[in-house]
Amino acid sequence: MTTLEEVRRRAEADARTYGYYLHPDAAFLNDLVEGLKRNEERYGYPSCPCRLATGNFDIDRDIICPCDYRDPDVSEYGCCYCALYMRKDLYEGKTPINPIPERRPPEKQARAYGVTTAAPAPMPVQKVSEKPGQQPAGVKKKLWYCKQCGYVIYREDPPYVCPICKAKREMFAQIEIAAQG
Amino acid sequence: MTTLEEVRRRAEADARTYGYYLHPDAAFLNDLVEGLKRNEERYGYPSCPCRLATGNFDIDRDIICPCDYRDPDVSEYGCCYCALYMRKDLYEGKTPINPIPERRPPEKQARAYGVTTAAPAPMPVQKVSEKPGQQPAGVKKKLWYCKQCGYVIYREDPPYVCPICKAKREMFAQIEIAAQG
Amino acid sequence: MTTLEEVRRRAEADARTYGYYLHPDAAFLNDLVEGLKRNEERYGYPSCPCRLATGNFDIDRDIICPCDYRDPDVSEYGCCYCALYMRKDLYEGKTPINPIPERRPPEKQARAYGVTTAAPAPMPVQKVSEKPGQQPAGVKKKLWYCKQCGYVIYREDPPYVCPICKAKREMFAQIEIAAQG
Repeated sequence: MTTLEEVRRRAEADARTYGYYLHPDAAFLNDLVEGLKRNEERYGYPSCPCRLATGNFDIDRDIICPCDYRDPDVSEYGCCYCALYMRKDLYEGKTPINPIPERRPPEKQARAYGVTTAAPAPMPVQKVSEKPGQQPAGVKKKLWYCKQCGYVIYREDPPYVCPICKAKREMFAQIEIAAQG
Repeated sequence: MTTLEEVRRRAEADARTYGYYLHPDAAFLNDLVEGLKRNEERYGYPSCPCRLATGNFDIDRDIICPCDYRDPDVSEYGCCYCALYMRKDLYEGKTPINPIPERRPPEKQARAYGVTTAAPAPMPVQKVSEKPGQQPAGVKKKLWYCKQCGYVIYREDPPYVCPICKAKREMFAQIEIAAQG
Repeated sequence: MTTLEEVRRRAEADARTYGYYLHPDAAFLNDLVEGLKRNEERYGYPSCPCRLATGNFDIDRDIICPCDYRDPDVSEYGCCYCALYMRKDLYEGKTPINPIPERRPPEKQARAYGVTTAAPAPMPVQKVSEKPGQQPAGVKKKLWYCKQCGYVIYREDPPYVCPICKAKREMFAQIEIAAQG
């Protein structure tokens, strides 16, 4: 089983790679790390402690920490949605830590909330009616590459920011290979 | 449209990932960021502010910032060709920032200058005569992998340095898969 | 030929990307860098200066520096097996640098020691008898992807930690593509 210390070390290691800092308040940080651990035990993966997961991996993939939205959020606002990861100027108190808007696209939120969650919901959530044919089974992975640096990724959709060269999502294109994974 | 602030944040984020610093002189840095923004507006991608681009993506790919030459240049000389990205010792003034030689291979320069550029040239450039058969259409992307760490990349040629494990270009080999992208 | 300075710069560049530090003792660090250079001359690749290599690339791949075990070791113990790479708290002397256990799996050690090494052994080593059929030729590369972030890798087995999102090895799955490389 993953210990609290392991979850914390993973976040610290990830912060180091990207030059980020973890929230400076020890108690606040501890709550987030405990939330990650709780989600990892509940779902099998450390989904965002500030968002509602469904327990369906493919539906939740974009909100597994570090979520798909962290890098554009740190770049634009200085910290991620949870304020777990942040830039140095926010960590040092030179820039205030403000609430930031939810970047997760409405269609992904709708897809997630349309899936019945058996696990206890961490926060109240409005159920969105599910259209027939919009099944989570529809998640289809593809091979993408960054046209700028060549980085290859196998996902439903490309990242917001290339982790290698920071190119924007629009710089990603599909590689046409017959793949099944 | 990409704002000046977005271009600057992208460079900052990229510097953080690699442990680099941006040029310490605010006015000099601003000129570079404005050059990147101008190129992004002109060509659709932020090609190097210190080099002549053609407007043909495949021909210019290696000089889109961060260019293919940044990592070996920072490693060998302490900063990139433009002095946008640099090591801490240069940023802090402990090591002087000197002009560095152009690492872009002559054959790539020739291929680029052989392409007529419709956009205004940012600097005088000697036109190289184009041999028939040496068309830019000849750019052929392949799947490469780093034999050391396994990093996979889809480009015309492998990077100078593996961004994951820093292995040299010679450590890259082709993956033989029928691909079209 | 790779110079001592190039080997050192490669280690420094790699430390920067991951937010690590090199060993603070200049003489100790120099010994490690010289060991890397010696191995690179002897084998053609900079295998770990603290481990016995075989000279067979596929068998040694996991112990080429930075080895497969560095990231989980820095995360768990604060530094790698050699103490070449370490966290800031160990670099600054706030946490002692202790010997750490060998994470290389016994089956990989056995596979390596079963291969006759023609090169001079850097340390005494117990020879393990080689079972027929357990040939190093059996190394088979596959395409793996990180189910969390989509990172694609072409190796015999997945990494311990995803270098992009820090997900654990269990988060990697195979991409089923007919590949030969």
